[in-house]
Amino acid sequence: MNPFSLLQLISRDLEKLETELKNFLRVPAPVLSETGVYLLEAGGKRVRPAFTLLAGKLFRYDEKMLFTVAMAIEVIHMATLAHDDIVDDSALRRGKPTLAARWGNGVAVVTGDYLLAKAMELVYSMKNREVAAILARTSVEMCRGEICQIRTSYDIGQSVYDYFYKIRRKTALLISLSCEAGAIVSGASREEARILRQYGHCLGIAFQMVDDILDLDGTKEKLGKPVGSDVRQGIITLPMIIAMNGPGSGALRLRELLARKDKSEEEVAEAVQLIRRSDGLSLSLEAARRYIARACQKLPELPDRPARAALTKMAEFIANRRH
Amino acid sequence: MNPFSLLQLISRDLEKLETELKNFLRVPAPVLSETGVYLLEAGGKRVRPAFTLLAGKLFRYDEKMLFTVAMAIEVIHMATLAHDDIVDDSALRRGKPTLAARWGNGVAVVTGDYLLAKAMELVYSMKNREVAAILARTSVEMCRGEICQIRTSYDIGQSVYDYFYKIRRKTALLISLSCEAGAIVSGASREEARILRQYGHCLGIAFQMVDDILDLDGTKEKLGKPVGSDVRQGIITLPMIIAMNGPGSGALRLRELLARKDKSEEEVAEAVQLIRRSDGLSLSLEAARRYIARACQKLPELPDRPARAALTKMAEFIANRRH
Repeated sequence: MNPFSLLQLISRDLEKLETELKNFLRVPAPVLSETGVYLLEAGGKRVRPAFTLLAGKLFRYDEKMLFTVAMAIEVIHMATLAHDDIVDDSALRRGKPTLAARWGNGVAVVTGDYLLAKAMELVYSMKNREVAAILARTSVEMCRGEICQIRTSYDIGQSVYDYFYKIRRKTALLISLSCEAGAIVSGASREEARILRQYGHCLGIAFQMVDDILDLDGTKEKLGKPVGSDVRQGIITLPMIIAMNGPGSGALRLRELLARKDKSEEEVAEAVQLIRRSDGLSLSLEAARRYIARACQKLPELPDRPARAALTKMAEFIANRRH
Repeated sequence: MNPFSLLQLISRDLEKLETELKNFLRVPAPVLSETGVYLLEAGGKRVRPAFTLLAGKLFRYDEKMLFTVAMAIEVIHMATLAHDDIVDDSALRRGKPTLAARWGNGVAVVTGDYLLAKAMELVYSMKNREVAAILARTSVEMCRGEICQIRTSYDIGQSVYDYFYKIRRKTALLISLSCEAGAIVSGASREEARILRQYGHCLGIAFQMVDDILDLDGTKEKLGKPVGSDVRQGIITLPMIIAMNGPGSGALRLRELLARKDKSEEEVAEAVQLIRRSDGLSLSLEAARRYIARACQKLPELPDRPARAALTKMAEFIANRRH
């Protein structure tokens, strides 16, 4: 179920895009078409394509161009999932075994590279150097974020600044690009493209913050992976930073637990409980909501079309989602 | 020691390129500049940049353009090394620990992705859509080659055709692109660019064939990795295919050994001995030399400049190299 199909404005286009994505990845290539389609069918909310299409709807909606850029961004996103699961050594994603778990690290590495190369083909075919250049720069920054996450895992001394450095690169930049690129290929002005980039950036930050909250607050069924997987993997998120810096002995115990590698399942559960009992989750949610508000702040300066209201809806959905 | 520095024609430019590559990868990025420079300093013969520069010397030598494309291709090559070592689970490359062995799979994955993204930045900056498009297509095919290698590992039933399918993608395409792209950005005609592509393709095939021979015929000191690492990893190369299909009981025993996963070191050594005693190595070397000859066949149709003679020298070097 794609929550964005509720957005009537683009629901038919998103369906069409889904078919095109499948056809694009189905092109016969032993193993790679299988793993590509597996990743695609593993779900995903197509958040990024939805943003690109909505941005396009604000201006001159050139379906061909928008589909190309939306597909390229979604395929890059899929590639990062394939590679992230190697980095994080994750067995499950959205309730299904990860590529790395099912086919091994080697196949997961090559599938990611293959998707990146296929995305490059799409990008080059667009003949839009501006989008291509932003995409390359974004990819470089995404890698910097990922390496920072590796470097700072289990590091309980990290600051809120470190957290935002990471989630900006891990999530916000690509969502930001989805919005901006949709605007650029649709004839938006520089200022309009900038407003959409800013919208995507704030929304992307909020999106990851909510993700990090749900990892601690959700249930295994809704998440499609065990609760507290960040705790298990040593990824220090905002609710943890807040909880560790809170008053009382709980904070001290939490620091001890989060710094420990190879935690037992009991210790993971204890850490999750300690965070839940702190004000880490509620303060994080408040912060996420501030980002949502900031995202929408400048929307009134964009053309007054139905897509503008839909962008606000998207923001609300992200703030309130439970999985 | 770079054997190509013997080529006076480009030795100074190759040195300059080496400095530029180092500056390019040194750009401050925690861990990533360290791993990037580590990969760079691990050696490598800069075969691909040498081809690009030589191709340029045949026509209008635009240093800036040629350096950009040569660096992009070498950085992509380095990215594939970082990722291949994860796929092959290799501990050593050129006598030094691999990235994956020293920093772990996660860092090796991200370093490869980072290098790919940095290469994309270079490619986009060139404003040459033709080169960009060939590069994307080449990257897609390289992944197909890699996945084929994973799929057919330990598969003793594979044919000479399978072997050539793999080495074309694994090695020949990128060398071919090095030559062709050097020609394209230097104002060569379509036909001249085609001849250089063909040259690079045949040479690339020969290069990999010689590599595969040396893996069985060399010494650990010269290779910088244990002898027979292909045997150990289940990569079936041409000398093995020839030896397995030879007469006598040795061939049968070899089939048994090559199909076996988790071979002991004694079994690896026995397999290497069986191949050495067959005519697999000599016939493979003959075949490689035929590719070298084919590579040089059409060179007389290119402009009669010193670089043309140097291309022949490169071919001879590849045919005769011992490491």
